[in-house]
Amino acid sequence: MITFAEIMQMEPKLVSTSRSVMTEMIMPNDTNPLHHLMGGNLMRWMDIIGGICAGKHCESHVVTASVDHVSFHEGIEVGEVITLTAQVTRAFNTSVETFVEVHVADIKGHNSRKSNHAYFTFVAVDEKNHRPQKVPGVIPENPEEEKLFESAQRRREVRLVLAGRIKPEEASELIDYFSAFDE
Amino acid sequence: MITFAEIMQMEPKLVSTSRSVMTEMIMPNDTNPLHHLMGGNLMRWMDIIGGICAGKHCESHVVTASVDHVSFHEGIEVGEVITLTAQVTRAFNTSVETFVEVHVADIKGHNSRKSNHAYFTFVAVDEKNHRPQKVPGVIPENPEEEKLFESAQRRREVRLVLAGRIKPEEASELIDYFSAFDE
Amino acid sequence: MITFAEIMQMEPKLVSTSRSVMTEMIMPNDTNPLHHLMGGNLMRWMDIIGGICAGKHCESHVVTASVDHVSFHEGIEVGEVITLTAQVTRAFNTSVETFVEVHVADIKGHNSRKSNHAYFTFVAVDEKNHRPQKVPGVIPENPEEEKLFESAQRRREVRLVLAGRIKPEEASELIDYFSAFDE
Amino acid sequence: MITFAEIMQMEPKLVSTSRSVMTEMIMPNDTNPLHHLMGGNLMRWMDIIGGICAGKHCESHVVTASVDHVSFHEGIEVGEVITLTAQVTRAFNTSVETFVEVHVADIKGHNSRKSNHAYFTFVAVDEKNHRPQKVPGVIPENPEEEKLFESAQRRREVRLVLAGRIKPEEASELIDYFSAFDE
Amino acid sequence: MITFAEIMQMEPKLVSTSRSVMTEMIMPNDTNPLHHLMGGNLMRWMDIIGGICAGKHCESHVVTASVDHVSFHEGIEVGEVITLTAQVTRAFNTSVETFVEVHVADIKGHNSRKSNHAYFTFVAVDEKNHRPQKVPGVIPENPEEEKLFESAQRRREVRLVLAGRIKPEEASELIDYFSAFDE
Amino acid sequence: MITFAEIMQMEPKLVSTSRSVMTEMIMPNDTNPLHHLMGGNLMRWMDIIGGICAGKHCESHVVTASVDHVSFHEGIEVGEVITLTAQVTRAFNTSVETFVEVHVADIKGHNSRKSNHAYFTFVAVDEKNHRPQKVPGVIPENPEEEKLFESAQRRREVRLVLAGRIKPEEASELIDYFSAFDE
Repeated sequence: MITFAEIMQMEPKLVSTSRSVMTEMIMPNDTNPLHHLMGGNLMRWMDIIGGICAGKHCESHVVTASVDHVSFHEGIEVGEVITLTAQVTRAFNTSVETFVEVHVADIKGHNSRKSNHAYFTFVAVDEKNHRPQKVPGVIPENPEEEKLFESAQRRREVRLVLAGRIKPEEASELIDYFSAFDE
Repeated sequence: MITFAEIMQMEPKLVSTSRSVMTEMIMPNDTNPLHHLMGGNLMRWMDIIGGICAGKHCESHVVTASVDHVSFHEGIEVGEVITLTAQVTRAFNTSVETFVEVHVADIKGHNSRKSNHAYFTFVAVDEKNHRPQKVPGVIPENPEEEKLFESAQRRREVRLVLAGRIKPEEASELIDYFSAFDE
Repeated sequence: MITFAEIMQMEPKLVSTSRSVMTEMIMPNDTNPLHHLMGGNLMRWMDIIGGICAGKHCESHVVTASVDHVSFHEGIEVGEVITLTAQVTRAFNTSVETFVEVHVADIKGHNSRKSNHAYFTFVAVDEKNHRPQKVPGVIPENPEEEKLFESAQRRREVRLVLAGRIKPEEASELIDYFSAFDE
Repeated sequence: MITFAEIMQMEPKLVSTSRSVMTEMIMPNDTNPLHHLMGGNLMRWMDIIGGICAGKHCESHVVTASVDHVSFHEGIEVGEVITLTAQVTRAFNTSVETFVEVHVADIKGHNSRKSNHAYFTFVAVDEKNHRPQKVPGVIPENPEEEKLFESAQRRREVRLVLAGRIKPEEASELIDYFSAFDE
Repeated sequence: MITFAEIMQMEPKLVSTSRSVMTEMIMPNDTNPLHHLMGGNLMRWMDIIGGICAGKHCESHVVTASVDHVSFHEGIEVGEVITLTAQVTRAFNTSVETFVEVHVADIKGHNSRKSNHAYFTFVAVDEKNHRPQKVPGVIPENPEEEKLFESAQRRREVRLVLAGRIKPEEASELIDYFSAFDE
Repeated sequence: MITFAEIMQMEPKLVSTSRSVMTEMIMPNDTNPLHHLMGGNLMRWMDIIGGICAGKHCESHVVTASVDHVSFHEGIEVGEVITLTAQVTRAFNTSVETFVEVHVADIKGHNSRKSNHAYFTFVAVDEKNHRPQKVPGVIPENPEEEKLFESAQRRREVRLVLAGRIKPEEASELIDYFSAFDE
């Protein structure tokens, strides 16, 4: 039986409800011998803020299910300040995809630039048995949020293929997408 | 002018030359409130051992260029021991792809299982100007290494599409792969 | 001689320009044996976000000059999420006062509450000689910011008395304030 | 009913019984981009040694209740060694005030100087329910300890005003102090 | 009563079964003000990998019982990579001796050299009461492992003398060894 | 040529001049899965406080040269407080031996007990070239300090044998000591 509290929790929610911001100063131990932030440390912070955002949306504990492709473009130096913003894009039964963006600037606020972004997917789990549980839907409110909502379906299909959980021939969106280039 | 030392360094090398192993015990601060290793911390370690392996192969400093899709299957608990193994799969001009595998067992060596794996790509850079520099080729020696060597080309094409550096219609391997399912 | 760039930097700025947000999940090592966040760790994070905010406002390196009285009311537990918001309140020649507020909620976003706040004062210093340098003024835009701007003068007087840099009999605002109760 | 053990514990104690000393070497991650110890890190250590001292005096768990004004004068550099000394000054029903002093010198023991000090107040709590519990009195033994004992009353009044727990017009010591300057 | 599982666990095992490898990159916070790895940090890593190896051999929790003499020869610098290899040498009732070797090279894999080694002894304890429990024997397979197996007896005698658990006159191996030089 | 400052520095010094005290609270990340302090972490702290003490005595940078046998007796639990005291015992040309003692008690100051001790030897090095340099002598002032001073000679002989820098037959003190038991 599902309780009233659970029904309330299942009401779809706005993206803005769970948007989360994290700011970190790059310390010496976060960097490689060239004094640049190591990619792994950035992914660690992206995972934390993505998880906080997902937990707030799902009102539950969450565990990281997957991370899509992440690229690292230009170096981030010791003493620079990074700002990570996480927002949910779309919910899928027991999981929710988050979009995490990273911006960087020096300590004076100068040389501000986008560093990179990634999609982290989290599964909501109940506290006692760590079993997956249903998550509330996501309501996009503006064109940017809608674009992320729409494209989430295709990214999910890629993940299912990569995880071997659907066969390539079942990935209808991907087949449509790539076969359009085949003549 | 290229020196003799540089030529020597450019000689293709065996995969085994740079294979690297890392063992870590999961400490309380590595885990989420459910006492499971956080995905971001695992990616941080994968990045370090991948970078050490790539640096050894390239005999140079390296920076993380990208990480392909990573999935997290079952939880890793506090006090468990993870073993990460990194090996190069293939070199591409100034970058090298590494394959990082994670195995886990409890402190008694029991409940041993594969946790997950990922492909990390590193760019070799010179110490002074941090400019990309050529890397030695990779010589696979057994069927497993050859399989990783072969498939590296397709993974690279995916990365170039995702990074927007080639257009989808130029991704010939992907088009062949997916259009085969389209009738 | 003062350069054009320096003049531009000295233009007074809005409070919102440098407002900064930090989110942290309380990890086991941040807590005392009762599993509550230790006060000193909270102050450490307040100092970092206050410093990032002050650096952005001053467009310069900054060092912590002082912290006013901080109270700790209810415990924050391991696994909870804290959100720290820092904003400048007023500038004084070479220093700027920041107001840092801390809110806390559990990982599900429940039990949200204000934890505490404090005033951190930072001195802007030049990168080379670490000498104090002029900072831009602060423009409050709404009643709340104006109230913080006004009261900053009194807090500063308290600090100067406490630091022994003015005599109690020179603290005119404080004398007026307390002597009103004396009859 | 109060046990014999509790009565023994309530016997007032000498300041020297719980005096505690902590030595730390400043590591790179403790410093800001100018390589100076960040104020927040110093406060973190002051809180830990103050809490250890208070716990020893109260023979109980303690939680930080408040920190009075802290000033930071001159920079402390990476590689320098700080020595923190904590002692109780006076007890107030369920809380105890500690005085924490910080001295600094370089690794050779040269350039020794006082860095700063602060008053940290801790509340003794019982292990099970985290409820405040009575603490033993403090016996000062020399003029310096007596001076800290006497002035503790005034500092407490300031804290109660700042925390909004007494009204300014009830702060009799402060009113006497400041109104003396009003003519 | 001893269970079948326990009997199986008590079967002597090959050294190679539990050999463990750890790789770490030296980060700024691991070094002293001269930017050399601090001896204590190296010992910390040696203890962890030794303990992981001992736990695997004993299939149980283990605690460090003692460390024999450790020497530090040449400095290891920030950014260098250390590889620690641990293997069991011999078992003694409820304890097992491990031999931990450290090699170092720079990030390019150059300047490879042996740093040092040490013998760490661990006691196997049961999970519930932390009482010592029997450990499986060690089967050396090659001359190097046999040499370590043989010499373990003498090292143990030294430890028992140093720990005051046997009298010097009972250390028959040591007496034979040193008195041979006395004429 | 030796300067006046150097001569002054070379004056033998009292043990008490450089005695150093460190207090640490055991945090979750310092412990193994049984929640006991890991031996390696204790050695890390012993090395730091030993080095601070040696640096103060030598008025120079120092590097760890060796650690004698360390035993670990009873477990130290998370939340307990350890106090480490380091003092120099004797100087040998360019090195100084320190004696580091560890005491432990719970957060209430109860269950106070000696944990263990060890001898750490440090070499004084000059800041520029990291070459060994002369250190001042040690003046013991009481029977305990004298005993440590006397026995330092024998411990040094053991270290030289273990490091292979003298032959066993040159270890005259050891030969006398053990051959006395041989009849």
